[in-house]
Amino acid sequence: MAKSMTLLWGAGSPPCWRVMIALEEKKLHGYKRKVLSFERGEHKSQEVLEVNPRGQLPTFKHGDNILNESSAVCLYLENQFKSQGHKLIPDSPAEQARMYQRMMEGLTFTEKLNSVVYYESIVPEEERHDSAVTRHREALTAELQLWEGYLQTVAAGSYLAGGFSLADVIVFPNIAYAFRFGLSVGRYPKLAKYYSLLKDRPSIKTSWPPHWVAIPQGYDILKDL
Amino acid sequence: MAKSMTLLWGAGSPPCWRVMIALEEKKLHGYKRKVLSFERGEHKSQEVLEVNPRGQLPTFKHGDNILNESSAVCLYLENQFKSQGHKLIPDSPAEQARMYQRMMEGLTFTEKLNSVVYYESIVPEEERHDSAVTRHREALTAELQLWEGYLQTVAAGSYLAGGFSLADVIVFPNIAYAFRFGLSVGRYPKLAKYYSLLKDRPSIKTSWPPHWVAIPQGYDILKDL
Repeated sequence: MAKSMTLLWGAGSPPCWRVMIALEEKKLHGYKRKVLSFERGEHKSQEVLEVNPRGQLPTFKHGDNILNESSAVCLYLENQFKSQGHKLIPDSPAEQARMYQRMMEGLTFTEKLNSVVYYESIVPEEERHDSAVTRHREALTAELQLWEGYLQTVAAGSYLAGGFSLADVIVFPNIAYAFRFGLSVGRYPKLAKYYSLLKDRPSIKTSWPPHWVAIPQGYDILKDL
Repeated sequence: MAKSMTLLWGAGSPPCWRVMIALEEKKLHGYKRKVLSFERGEHKSQEVLEVNPRGQLPTFKHGDNILNESSAVCLYLENQFKSQGHKLIPDSPAEQARMYQRMMEGLTFTEKLNSVVYYESIVPEEERHDSAVTRHREALTAELQLWEGYLQTVAAGSYLAGGFSLADVIVFPNIAYAFRFGLSVGRYPKLAKYYSLLKDRPSIKTSWPPHWVAIPQGYDILKDL
């Protein structure tokens, strides 16, 4: 099955990482994959634009079916391969409700991270304001506190919605990314604990961004949040 | 079943409208609902914050299960009430792939609409730039052209992913909203045709924003796109 799948991805991108985690969880091994460089603008190359007119990564093909939104790929893979690998959508209505809710909130979390980490890439120089940077950092702090709060209410050693689910597939890369960019373990102890709980899970470890392994030292953009 | 459901919503908001369409499609009638006013800031009221710490509408409760992200509510309702009302997730892998993809792209579409229509609410006065307004309008134009293109490739009289699906539930309110804000029928003929095809569908007509019925005249913010 996985032989008919192709993934174009970029290293360190939470949306790309989600797809790789989902593929591992569903035991879809041996798919074709190619890493492209955001720095060199390869996500805007003809090769990508042919499958994704938005010029974004990931792009994913399964046979003739094209999916480029990470959450869409994850939902599709779980639905197409329900009985294979780890079940990523819980049956219990309560867990399912929480899973869908956290999963979709995870997309907002990514946006808020990006608006801080990539402010200078998103906003042209003549439109930048210190007050905007402050606002985005405050919004991200509020977002991080929200997730810290969500994790207060789940049982110790637990995932976002009961067992490991699509909520974790979508949200974990955000959290790993936040720590990579300097988030304080001391001020976000629940996020740090969740990070520790998941970082060695085989699907996550196998798909860990290669340059994060090569250069474990991260950045400090988020250290004061 | 629907008796144990409560929806807090705001009129004219695409995310709220999606939930109402999904409830109609799943024949979930008789749920409790209360309309709140964005203008009076009621989405930031204690009543909302108790169920949704983000202070956003919709907020939705089914028994003790809380879901506030519109796409999460739609996925949950379809999965919980699969055999009731209209089936909103197709079985065919090709249609399912397209459905998830378009559905998730629909969230980006909403963001791009908001960044034009609500620019002055989102950006404080001292941080506003004409160049930013232009950029957001260009990004929205590109987005609209993308959807116009998607609709070129579907069969005449067809929905976004085969039969009427969650993709339409998520995306239609964006398109209705764009026309309400003055989008040109002449420059976006496929979007206009899609709008005509869906506007009288019972689930959509029943949940049409009441003030749009009362005051059919819209705005012209998007007329030049």
